[in-house]
Amino acid sequence: MKINGQPYRTIWEAADGKSVEVIDQRKLPHIFDTVRLDNVERYAWAISDMVIRGAPLIGVCAAYGLATAMFENSSDDGLALAYERLIGTRPTAVNLRWSLDRMRGFFMGMVPEARASSGFALARSIAEEDVQLSAAIGRHGAEIIQRAWSAKGQKGPVNILTHCNAGWLAAVDWGTATSPIYHAVAQGVPVHVYVDETRPRNQGASLTAFELNEEGVPHSVIVDNAGGHLMQHGQVDLCIVGSDRTTSTGDVCNKIGTYLKALAAKDNDVPFYAALPFSTIDWSLAEGVRSIPIETRSDEEVTHVSGKMDDGMIATVQITPDGSSAYNPAFDVTPARLVTGIITERGVAPATEAGLRALYA
Amino acid sequence: MKINGQPYRTIWEAADGKSVEVIDQRKLPHIFDTVRLDNVERYAWAISDMVIRGAPLIGVCAAYGLATAMFENSSDDGLALAYERLIGTRPTAVNLRWSLDRMRGFFMGMVPEARASSGFALARSIAEEDVQLSAAIGRHGAEIIQRAWSAKGQKGPVNILTHCNAGWLAAVDWGTATSPIYHAVAQGVPVHVYVDETRPRNQGASLTAFELNEEGVPHSVIVDNAGGHLMQHGQVDLCIVGSDRTTSTGDVCNKIGTYLKALAAKDNDVPFYAALPFSTIDWSLAEGVRSIPIETRSDEEVTHVSGKMDDGMIATVQITPDGSSAYNPAFDVTPARLVTGIITERGVAPATEAGLRALYA
Repeated sequence: MKINGQPYRTIWEAADGKSVEVIDQRKLPHIFDTVRLDNVERYAWAISDMVIRGAPLIGVCAAYGLATAMFENSSDDGLALAYERLIGTRPTAVNLRWSLDRMRGFFMGMVPEARASSGFALARSIAEEDVQLSAAIGRHGAEIIQRAWSAKGQKGPVNILTHCNAGWLAAVDWGTATSPIYHAVAQGVPVHVYVDETRPRNQGASLTAFELNEEGVPHSVIVDNAGGHLMQHGQVDLCIVGSDRTTSTGDVCNKIGTYLKALAAKDNDVPFYAALPFSTIDWSLAEGVRSIPIETRSDEEVTHVSGKMDDGMIATVQITPDGSSAYNPAFDVTPARLVTGIITERGVAPATEAGLRALYA
Repeated sequence: MKINGQPYRTIWEAADGKSVEVIDQRKLPHIFDTVRLDNVERYAWAISDMVIRGAPLIGVCAAYGLATAMFENSSDDGLALAYERLIGTRPTAVNLRWSLDRMRGFFMGMVPEARASSGFALARSIAEEDVQLSAAIGRHGAEIIQRAWSAKGQKGPVNILTHCNAGWLAAVDWGTATSPIYHAVAQGVPVHVYVDETRPRNQGASLTAFELNEEGVPHSVIVDNAGGHLMQHGQVDLCIVGSDRTTSTGDVCNKIGTYLKALAAKDNDVPFYAALPFSTIDWSLAEGVRSIPIETRSDEEVTHVSGKMDDGMIATVQITPDGSSAYNPAFDVTPARLVTGIITERGVAPATEAGLRALYA
């Protein structure tokens, strides 16, 4: 998608053929900067420090990380060490394990000496696949938006609420939750997006708003508290969110606060969709609330907020009193009973085991 | 309650007998400062700019504002002008109208020349009454916390989630939602409070956390997104919030986001209480979601966040991209079906018309 009118992806290969460049998402929306990742430690830092984030992008970045690691030490031990270093960076997203397992399986099938020269090709194929998955999610999801527009007599924009950033910045391109929006807009459907700011890291206010701005999609940033009120008053036609891990039964683990919006959607008969590629589905789990490990992140994400001052400098301010502690779970799980449907690259399934298995028979 | 070990109220009369001092709540928790209010315009500014806030305190402050206005112009016209200026400051809280009507009725019953000399006495009685109401709410609410402690075998603290600041800073003293907490703690019940930060103005992170800190009550600040996850995992024993207006049928209008927490409480069988004095009940309304006017405040409250920098200076940072707009409704309405009970100065009522009318027969 576009930044300043120029097409970008979130990750691309550097000219040396053994490292990548990524957009530094910690500095958006105020500063556009890129970061070079050229050793496994640096990839691990980029993932855990959230230089890059979003389940699909974490998977792709980790794949490149393992490929880069093979230039340092392509032995079985080197592979195992790099795998362990990368998989420990984020506990909740399942795409990370999926792509690392895929890369490791590929490397284990060849002699160590061949690993460095072929790793980037596989990582590239995972990245290209992600773009295709996102595009397919967009085509299927756009049909839902088209129907919502028809249902309101093609009067006024379709008002879509989204939480966090499941946009192209969370993937390689297109995004998951935003891909249907970009596709619908391209088809001529007027859309207005309510963007949850998504505390504590404000991925909505900073990344989703940035994306929509750059693509010229009308939107309003709202605090995470506001969505229920909007749904009570008919101001939201549908919700679309992403997912970091989805159980085989349709429970959706996503950014903290998603569950609250799903409750409000149910209470007000607003359709609530999760958009995700197959790599986000954890077929080993039949239940999410008890089973999915929820990452707890630092207090400082809650107690401090970063942004741009009047003079253009980036600053961090403390909002809590000295002496107050915080608690910072990063994800929650929305039970399948609250999910209208799951938008995948293969189509839209009901959030049930039968629904998902029918798509992926 | 205490600040730095010293007892304070949120508002007190100045030595000149015709103006008041209030704590400047915009600067908390980082700076303790007070502001003198000595003419009606200054009172109106303090209320609409949220130098002071909270339904009970707005009512008391407006009462003093009308009393101060009588020193400027005590004619019927002067009274009408001051009344109109003050009642227009905040549309949602009903205490504002209640206390202004009470003051106006009092003034209309006397000759204009007598109004200035007697206004402060009535305003003072409203302030003292507010303290007694808050204390009584605390005594009744503490019984609920005592029972919750017994129900868990007196093991571990009672975990209470609250939203926004319905603390002593929202009233004259004690508070509404926090008064039961302060009373239970004084009775020896161990309490831990989950404090919703309460975007956009962060009254939880700044004011409630400040209060609890100064009183030594254990607490954790959480983002507004987190409460649902905590309730799913049994980490919240009960919720207590305040109210800016309550219908005769028990619908509770309170800070934006309250409704989302009530939905999560219902979904997880967590008791959800609103604590409020009788002056918050609007007996003229039988329904809240459609009937209560919801104040929309400035975009900037959403797009910008204020806090303390490392050097101790207060700064404001912009979190959204240039060009993104925002939408900022300040309150929402929680339907009575989601409210376990209403804690008033007369006891705890079910959130029904019969329940409330039985208390106020």
